[in-house]
Amino acid sequence: MRAWSVEGAFGLEHLHLVERPDPTPGPYEVVVRVTATSLNYRDLLMVRGFYNPKQPLPLIPVSDGVGVVTAVGPGVTRVAVGDRVAAIFAQKWLSYPATRARLLSTLGGPLDGMLAEQVCLHEDGLVHVPAHLSDAEAATLPCAALTAWTAMVEEGRVTAGSTVLILGTGGVSIFALQFAKMLGARAIVTSSSDAKLERAVALGADHTVNYRQTPEWWRAVRAFTDGEGVDQVIEVGGAGTFDQSVRSVKIGGLVSMIGVLAGGVDQVNLVRVLMQNIRVQGIIVGCRDAFEAMNRAVAHHGLRPVIDGTYPFERAPEALAALGRGEHFGKIVIEGARPASPRP
Amino acid sequence: MRAWSVEGAFGLEHLHLVERPDPTPGPYEVVVRVTATSLNYRDLLMVRGFYNPKQPLPLIPVSDGVGVVTAVGPGVTRVAVGDRVAAIFAQKWLSYPATRARLLSTLGGPLDGMLAEQVCLHEDGLVHVPAHLSDAEAATLPCAALTAWTAMVEEGRVTAGSTVLILGTGGVSIFALQFAKMLGARAIVTSSSDAKLERAVALGADHTVNYRQTPEWWRAVRAFTDGEGVDQVIEVGGAGTFDQSVRSVKIGGLVSMIGVLAGGVDQVNLVRVLMQNIRVQGIIVGCRDAFEAMNRAVAHHGLRPVIDGTYPFERAPEALAALGRGEHFGKIVIEGARPASPRP
Amino acid sequence: MRAWSVEGAFGLEHLHLVERPDPTPGPYEVVVRVTATSLNYRDLLMVRGFYNPKQPLPLIPVSDGVGVVTAVGPGVTRVAVGDRVAAIFAQKWLSYPATRARLLSTLGGPLDGMLAEQVCLHEDGLVHVPAHLSDAEAATLPCAALTAWTAMVEEGRVTAGSTVLILGTGGVSIFALQFAKMLGARAIVTSSSDAKLERAVALGADHTVNYRQTPEWWRAVRAFTDGEGVDQVIEVGGAGTFDQSVRSVKIGGLVSMIGVLAGGVDQVNLVRVLMQNIRVQGIIVGCRDAFEAMNRAVAHHGLRPVIDGTYPFERAPEALAALGRGEHFGKIVIEGARPASPRP
Amino acid sequence: MRAWSVEGAFGLEHLHLVERPDPTPGPYEVVVRVTATSLNYRDLLMVRGFYNPKQPLPLIPVSDGVGVVTAVGPGVTRVAVGDRVAAIFAQKWLSYPATRARLLSTLGGPLDGMLAEQVCLHEDGLVHVPAHLSDAEAATLPCAALTAWTAMVEEGRVTAGSTVLILGTGGVSIFALQFAKMLGARAIVTSSSDAKLERAVALGADHTVNYRQTPEWWRAVRAFTDGEGVDQVIEVGGAGTFDQSVRSVKIGGLVSMIGVLAGGVDQVNLVRVLMQNIRVQGIIVGCRDAFEAMNRAVAHHGLRPVIDGTYPFERAPEALAALGRGEHFGKIVIEGARPASPRP
Repeated sequence: MRAWSVEGAFGLEHLHLVERPDPTPGPYEVVVRVTATSLNYRDLLMVRGFYNPKQPLPLIPVSDGVGVVTAVGPGVTRVAVGDRVAAIFAQKWLSYPATRARLLSTLGGPLDGMLAEQVCLHEDGLVHVPAHLSDAEAATLPCAALTAWTAMVEEGRVTAGSTVLILGTGGVSIFALQFAKMLGARAIVTSSSDAKLERAVALGADHTVNYRQTPEWWRAVRAFTDGEGVDQVIEVGGAGTFDQSVRSVKIGGLVSMIGVLAGGVDQVNLVRVLMQNIRVQGIIVGCRDAFEAMNRAVAHHGLRPVIDGTYPFERAPEALAALGRGEHFGKIVIEGARPASPRP
Repeated sequence: MRAWSVEGAFGLEHLHLVERPDPTPGPYEVVVRVTATSLNYRDLLMVRGFYNPKQPLPLIPVSDGVGVVTAVGPGVTRVAVGDRVAAIFAQKWLSYPATRARLLSTLGGPLDGMLAEQVCLHEDGLVHVPAHLSDAEAATLPCAALTAWTAMVEEGRVTAGSTVLILGTGGVSIFALQFAKMLGARAIVTSSSDAKLERAVALGADHTVNYRQTPEWWRAVRAFTDGEGVDQVIEVGGAGTFDQSVRSVKIGGLVSMIGVLAGGVDQVNLVRVLMQNIRVQGIIVGCRDAFEAMNRAVAHHGLRPVIDGTYPFERAPEALAALGRGEHFGKIVIEGARPASPRP
Repeated sequence: MRAWSVEGAFGLEHLHLVERPDPTPGPYEVVVRVTATSLNYRDLLMVRGFYNPKQPLPLIPVSDGVGVVTAVGPGVTRVAVGDRVAAIFAQKWLSYPATRARLLSTLGGPLDGMLAEQVCLHEDGLVHVPAHLSDAEAATLPCAALTAWTAMVEEGRVTAGSTVLILGTGGVSIFALQFAKMLGARAIVTSSSDAKLERAVALGADHTVNYRQTPEWWRAVRAFTDGEGVDQVIEVGGAGTFDQSVRSVKIGGLVSMIGVLAGGVDQVNLVRVLMQNIRVQGIIVGCRDAFEAMNRAVAHHGLRPVIDGTYPFERAPEALAALGRGEHFGKIVIEGARPASPRP
Repeated sequence: MRAWSVEGAFGLEHLHLVERPDPTPGPYEVVVRVTATSLNYRDLLMVRGFYNPKQPLPLIPVSDGVGVVTAVGPGVTRVAVGDRVAAIFAQKWLSYPATRARLLSTLGGPLDGMLAEQVCLHEDGLVHVPAHLSDAEAATLPCAALTAWTAMVEEGRVTAGSTVLILGTGGVSIFALQFAKMLGARAIVTSSSDAKLERAVALGADHTVNYRQTPEWWRAVRAFTDGEGVDQVIEVGGAGTFDQSVRSVKIGGLVSMIGVLAGGVDQVNLVRVLMQNIRVQGIIVGCRDAFEAMNRAVAHHGLRPVIDGTYPFERAPEALAALGRGEHFGKIVIEGARPASPRP
């Protein structure tokens, strides 16, 4: 089988299309033919060696992927050949709470990821995906969607009438917007682009702020909430936005930190956090139980993930480069490899 | 009646013993003859004008105090003349959740505080204190004890077998240590003084670290918890300790920020917070329901607050100066004014 | 002013239209000219003496009502003359948790209720109502809507993708259906009437069961949830339905008991409750914080309460009789008294 | 190897000592030489066919057991040969929440249990036990102790100053008493025997009630809690006690149902449950995460389980008969089989 692999040294230029042996499933293992993957900022950091400079190479990158089960090993009961499944990011984090051991085995580094024709995973690391989604759509769920869901439902409590502030229009943020509407909440979205804000309104945003035009955007957020502040902030911006996020949230409110997207949250000031009973919660994707709960919600609502663009498997590096430009709205998807010969 | 008041300008040198008219209770109001107060670092910051430079003067400082009810206005049902009561810090925060309105009216700034012979408060702003405590002991509860209780029980979940890391040996920290034992948890205490650590052990500390001798104290904390990290950190140290606190806490653990004690928590780095599913929770004392729950626990356990020293009412500024030196272990108390003539 | 009052003995026939002095507000009190009330089954039980045979008479019945503030006493800050407000059922239950003292002072027994031209209440016992609602609609919120909200949001955790089983089509049940949709959940509704089930579908019910035609309706509920059972049951049926409710709920699920509507929940069997980790939660309306949170959600969604019928003030007993027949779908409303002379 | 097995028909008289082949571990499986087991009422019901009349026979009974790992299959990482481990009751319930699938595979029915010389289990179904406990003591933990812990810590929130009412002095109840003290709570214990109540006091009970002498014991409980009622009831008594338990608990309090011990909880009345915002929570032992948390607490406190009596392996039926008489205080233990030849 073919796979994209970071070989020899970090950097997009060291990402090569390589041949690997077809996997054979051991006890409780499952082979999945990958039909679509999607990109997260972590993937780019990983390929460049910024996420974990000590990551051993070679590495097959990319955390998100969906595919069809082609073989199962002895003892497998959760899935059957022909099932359409997604891999979960933290392969051993099935249920709360998170523990060190449960967060170690993540796809796309340190473990090999999904940018391959086939993957072989423990059956526990797979979930079925909603039937109404295309493979490309389903491939966007494992990290970005689950991160937003975890922040808002598992670690937060967004509900009808809540107000959520969502920074930006990247993958996690657009899911957060869609989930906010699904949960009955009000959503405020920020962006530097009026065109993107228009698209956010089309997806249901109740209020938008162009942070270029309104540099002190926290004032607009406060005004929209009668001076009280929002219930929760989906904080993907890092050090550059944290202070305003904290000014935007209500007394006793929640700031969900999803900063790997931003690459830096150093030198923030926590005085307001402690003076106003604020909770700052680090979010690191989510567990399998949450993934399955999210899928039930996605299926019930017929929610369609927003895809910015789709690249063929052979042009994966271009997809990563596009992610790096940061101009996307929603998710960037890479199709699965077209097998030379038909498969079951 | 007499009271200490910051008059004309901020600073300990502007704290004067003044005469004020005896209060008369309006509807639902209660007059309390103050029998003891205790100091918190916020009191010193307030007197110096560092806490809130816009605080109008004159101001009677000090948040904590206990006394005896001497008169009640129409409609009062919660207390009766002769009852021994403590005032609650946030006079309008009776129950969760905190709101802007509930946190506004705090004693010792912006409202006049307890460093007076008498105070007149709404009946809702008072609680009965445990019978086994002296007035001096009871006076230590409203801020320091309730902050520790809120962090560990209301906003945290310290329970039997949990491990709590407690920074330092000031008022909040010593209550945190006593409460940790009361809750069946393990406590690790840090200090720069071996003598203070010995006293912490006498109070039940399971493990201690001298951070002077062990500058990378988070390693000692981790080692004590089999590499996993503690369940919760009582973080009173601010910017200087935050990074090590985050390294000391387990995946998914809790760092309770009680930074007003430290005066600065700027420029902290949140990368570990988000990568390890950590929760940072700002703590701002607590509500009346929590105060009453804490009092039930204190009474059941016969817990005795640790008092570092006691000053007569007339020497209140010396007490504040002692607080400023930061060498105390537990709480600094000021006795109530001795009335010229006997009172009921 | 005029009021309906149970005079001398219990029973609808002892409900008389009487004259009472116009109220004058004391400190922190507010006079409200009642513009609409709505009925709950408790009102009927109260009038008949079944709810509390020891209730002293005379009693002005009815818990739910909305009106306009016409006068405020000294110290009032929460409302102003001209504001449109609803009274809260448990006048002293402002925030969680419930306590004995907070649940004692309920309107429509033991305290006089809302079936009067004017009421005089403590300002703490009032909330503003959503602007988009008519007075009649707003009058349905205090008990039925808040009970459903409390069950599903405060004491439960209905969220996107959850499944809720709602018994019947009375006031609480229809709000539960509307809230389920607002929260992004799936709703299953039972009734003995296909016509009512059709109306439930029009309101968004995802699945319905006619329990006359399907006496073992729990099997239909289970089938609809892939055999797992629902997340939560809104149990208003009492002894006759409890066993099937428990069979309908998933392992670890929640059965919210709202049985005052049914008048009896004796002789139920709890074996399944304990064997399947089920939670049975008694629901007794809700607190003011919850009322205000619900109102934010109702306002954001422009939710319109379902009114079965409206009666003029002078025909209040007919409205109670209609409630007793149990054929309603949604709420029965009584208009406020038309004052002889115009009021501000 | 030898095992006790219910052969052919239910009943103690059909419990036979039989020979079975020594187990060999498959992938992820572990062989444990059983060194001690302990009895729960469920075991007796199971042997008699009352728990599940459809349980296929033969069945090796008994849920609780501890032993030493003697062999591990491929892939095992959680335990090593020589480790001392306990089996968990619900072999697949590792973390919250409970689900149908996670509760199916329980030891001692439907799965073969621990009353054997050796057992072969998936590594996920084992936990290490506290070092300070004897094998007999450790064998008491899996059901009785974990049930009490789950009720009080995982599904309840007993904390310092809480008051817990504990019915009786059986296995779960005595652990509940010990845990209440460990958690800093107050414990009230009921029994029909003054001698047992004296032993409860020796274990730390703060208050006791002899329900023979005080048939309306709920009044004594209420009086002890200033009329408010307790925070939580450990309800093991079933139908005969439920009504008084509900009268004993505070508004908004918790009744934990652990009724399998009692064999019947039919025909209870839930009116008070709903009128007083009470929560009734079915408890079905607990998950592995909870077991490990409990073990940390047990180890930290050096808690010693209370053993009523110990029987040699060969006299297991006598132990079950003793359990049936219901006169025990704490747990009944059966020693592991003495192997003919020494083992490592």
